[in-house]
Amino acid sequence: MSIYGDYIKSVIRTVPDWPQPGVNFRDITPLLQNSAAFRKLIDSFVHRYQEMDIDAVAAIDARGFIVGAPLAYELGCSFVPVRKKGKLPFRTISETYTLEYGEAEVELHSDAFRAGDRILVVDDLIATGGTMLAAAKLITRSGGQVVETATIVDLPDLGGAQRIREAGYSVFAVCSFTEDE
Amino acid sequence: MSIYGDYIKSVIRTVPDWPQPGVNFRDITPLLQNSAAFRKLIDSFVHRYQEMDIDAVAAIDARGFIVGAPLAYELGCSFVPVRKKGKLPFRTISETYTLEYGEAEVELHSDAFRAGDRILVVDDLIATGGTMLAAAKLITRSGGQVVETATIVDLPDLGGAQRIREAGYSVFAVCSFTEDE
Repeated sequence: MSIYGDYIKSVIRTVPDWPQPGVNFRDITPLLQNSAAFRKLIDSFVHRYQEMDIDAVAAIDARGFIVGAPLAYELGCSFVPVRKKGKLPFRTISETYTLEYGEAEVELHSDAFRAGDRILVVDDLIATGGTMLAAAKLITRSGGQVVETATIVDLPDLGGAQRIREAGYSVFAVCSFTEDE
Repeated sequence: MSIYGDYIKSVIRTVPDWPQPGVNFRDITPLLQNSAAFRKLIDSFVHRYQEMDIDAVAAIDARGFIVGAPLAYELGCSFVPVRKKGKLPFRTISETYTLEYGEAEVELHSDAFRAGDRILVVDDLIATGGTMLAAAKLITRSGGQVVETATIVDLPDLGGAQRIREAGYSVFAVCSFTEDE
């Protein structure tokens, strides 16, 4: 957890029963709207990664862009979008992963970075970890070196971070919510 | 056009026949991957807006987030996502607009900003201008004051910027492409 973790967590809103009954959705929009909190959020990541020689921040479509773009700007490195299938116009490589019902696919441009580049993968939230893990695997397959996967919110009860760690990747979360919170 | 306009334009890639035959897609990913160019891109917007007392950057899902988030961070203001229908979990207001075939809808949280706030609306590209105009109208209806609509790329042959200006909003583009470029 980051030094600002408790503060960041305090400005995230829980919306009950969204997108379906029984789910507590963790809504980051109040955090983004609070300019002081948004600054502390980005600074939490900058502080952690500024000495880690990151070549590119790979951010997951779409809320991951909101963290990844300011972070790439501040670190002075590349910004690489990891997108849902069919959104990138050039040559792509893709990774399919399993959802509760069916499958999903993330894509990356095949010229997004150079072999051996040190890549930080970011998204807003880790639930079951499927999207983040697929993105990390895609980057590894493309020749990138995944330095860490990073998120604002982790939901440890769903086991995503553990699953990503078991696949050999490091995970950093600014804060976490248990199901009863 | 920005002072860096020619340079920014030079690192945007044209992908012919995407997403359909006859369309020249202007691909910003090489610009985002080039850390020096990405910095100049964001700085183009920072330079223009830093003295304009912007309260919030409203960015359009999803590529608008890539410009809007670093800009909000640098200006020290709020970041407000304008999203496609069904993506925002709290109370929303929405605006429908017409596409070539059918309709689309953009949404905003009803508590996204305070009445009278000075809002900058950003997206990556203005083509026919439908999405940008719908976002500006939505913000006006919500009580915000649209200071300007801003984009990386304008496609003047499609008339979007003119249409937005005729509706009473100011438009700023870092660079533009005519159809034969």
